[in-house]
Amino acid sequence: MAEKTIYLAGPDVFLPDAVAIGRRKQQLCRDYGFEGLFPLDKDEETEADATKIFRANCDLMRRASIGMFNLTPFRGPSADVGTAFEVAFMFAAGKPLFGYASVTTDYYDRVAATFGPITRRDGQPFDQNDCAVEDFNLYDNLMIARAIEDSGGVLVRVDENDSRGPSLAALKAFQAGLEVARSQLR
Amino acid sequence: MAEKTIYLAGPDVFLPDAVAIGRRKQQLCRDYGFEGLFPLDKDEETEADATKIFRANCDLMRRASIGMFNLTPFRGPSADVGTAFEVAFMFAAGKPLFGYASVTTDYYDRVAATFGPITRRDGQPFDQNDCAVEDFNLYDNLMIARAIEDSGGVLVRVDENDSRGPSLAALKAFQAGLEVARSQLR
Repeated sequence: MAEKTIYLAGPDVFLPDAVAIGRRKQQLCRDYGFEGLFPLDKDEETEADATKIFRANCDLMRRASIGMFNLTPFRGPSADVGTAFEVAFMFAAGKPLFGYASVTTDYYDRVAATFGPITRRDGQPFDQNDCAVEDFNLYDNLMIARAIEDSGGVLVRVDENDSRGPSLAALKAFQAGLEVARSQLR
Repeated sequence: MAEKTIYLAGPDVFLPDAVAIGRRKQQLCRDYGFEGLFPLDKDEETEADATKIFRANCDLMRRASIGMFNLTPFRGPSADVGTAFEVAFMFAAGKPLFGYASVTTDYYDRVAATFGPITRRDGQPFDQNDCAVEDFNLYDNLMIARAIEDSGGVLVRVDENDSRGPSLAALKAFQAGLEVARSQLR
């Protein structure tokens, strides 16, 4: 198998030990025959400039041949919006996409767990704020879940907790995702 | 000005009166010389199938020459992840993107309002869950905010409330966005 480059997207860049987690994920990529590109791999100097970070991330995504997206919920029941953006950016480029998360629930159940019971009206489910809740037995918003499947990839979920709750690094699911990616892209 | 088509993205599709809001926005588009494409403009029959909805939305985005994104916070301090996905999908296609929202705060302040005080460590801001908070004076995650600016568009914010809190339809900001789009794309 020729070496393939994986863009490592996810909210783990916001963890205090983000750089160490990135290194660990890059090592795991090597173990599976991939090269991992992590968004924090850049000059410290560029960290403080939103435009430079944006362009550096877009460049990394253009360089990568595969996208690996940490979709563990971040600041709400859904994935990080920056990660959702990156799913579409790489989907539009026609690259295979893999998702992973440290929770195994569906979006519907996480909305109920976060905001309270979901009620049905004319068969349609609504949250406590009277907004419809997607009920497709999918991990997250259908645009994200379907893009991954349409790209030929899969979304892997493995429960893993730390002191915060669901592990935002999601290393077990990440490794399971690498396993699937290797077998699919062999 | 030749008629241009606008894809109308946003979490307002989840409101109980989503179809009426879509019609209202399409009328406003016509008032400004645009044609508005609204995601719920499809057969009722397709509503229940995630794959069909995904593909129909992607087709509408490919047909549209402009993206108009309702980035009003949805189920958390950030924009709806489906909408974030669509920002990137149209950004990748090189189309001009406009954002609008019914809140005027920055992301940083909404994280503090939602999850409690932000603390600084070595100059870096962390939320109550010990995750770094982007502090770039931007409306939302930098990937979204910067993509809109990079595309040549702008993000318009106009405070507007209803019984839910910030109006999820964000009609005032939408109209202000149309105004800007018309003057920029003339």
